[in-house]
Amino acid sequence: MTLSLKEFGYKQAIVIRTDLEMGRGKIAAQVAHAAVSALDDVRKRHRDWAEAWLNEGQCKIVLKVKSEKDLSILEEAARDLGVEANIIRDRGLTQLPPDTATCIGIGPGPTELIDKITRDLKLL
Amino acid sequence: MTLSLKEFGYKQAIVIRTDLEMGRGKIAAQVAHAAVSALDDVRKRHRDWAEAWLNEGQCKIVLKVKSEKDLSILEEAARDLGVEANIIRDRGLTQLPPDTATCIGIGPGPTELIDKITRDLKLL
Repeated sequence: MTLSLKEFGYKQAIVIRTDLEMGRGKIAAQVAHAAVSALDDVRKRHRDWAEAWLNEGQCKIVLKVKSEKDLSILEEAARDLGVEANIIRDRGLTQLPPDTATCIGIGPGPTELIDKITRDLKLL
Repeated sequence: MTLSLKEFGYKQAIVIRTDLEMGRGKIAAQVAHAAVSALDDVRKRHRDWAEAWLNEGQCKIVLKVKSEKDLSILEEAARDLGVEANIIRDRGLTQLPPDTATCIGIGPGPTELIDKITRDLKLL
């Protein structure tokens, strides 16, 4: 049997801005930051979602947007559906000005909710 | 005052294979997986390290190696110093064969220990 992505009951989405033109190492670090922070938020309010997601093997997708405003729109959409979402701001120690919003971690949460929030976005 | 990376007492390193030629989205997802998994391991044995690292703002660096063997060498070096390290194996649902070792998460742990393990590696 081959597992398909659709068979995961829980998913985390991380959405990164491509307009900042970050390198792949910087992108990876920002996405990792978002994954850790959003999971910590979910653990506080939906511990069952967090545990189920970890037990399934941490299904996550990395998607892209083109502006800071897009991150804010996603944050609002997630909150409207009761899914924790966490915008990451870079400290600006290396490539970016301080407090630049770089990406957002959404969930983990039930796949159907995450898909409602992110269905119009493309994979990075 | 400008913060420099050297002022962080705790750090997490994630080291990814470049020989697999993964795209930036795949790299970011693998690195995020490693960050979450290694942190969870650290929390079990060095809860104080995990908390200190989170409170400092999750300093993390993303580095590169060229082979699976290099990941194993890093895992052994980390264990010799008492730092948790976690090799991530991809399920192979999308771009890679199942169980391909893609990267390793090391720590978070005290910066001096992480630096001992990773000092010869280059940034991704």
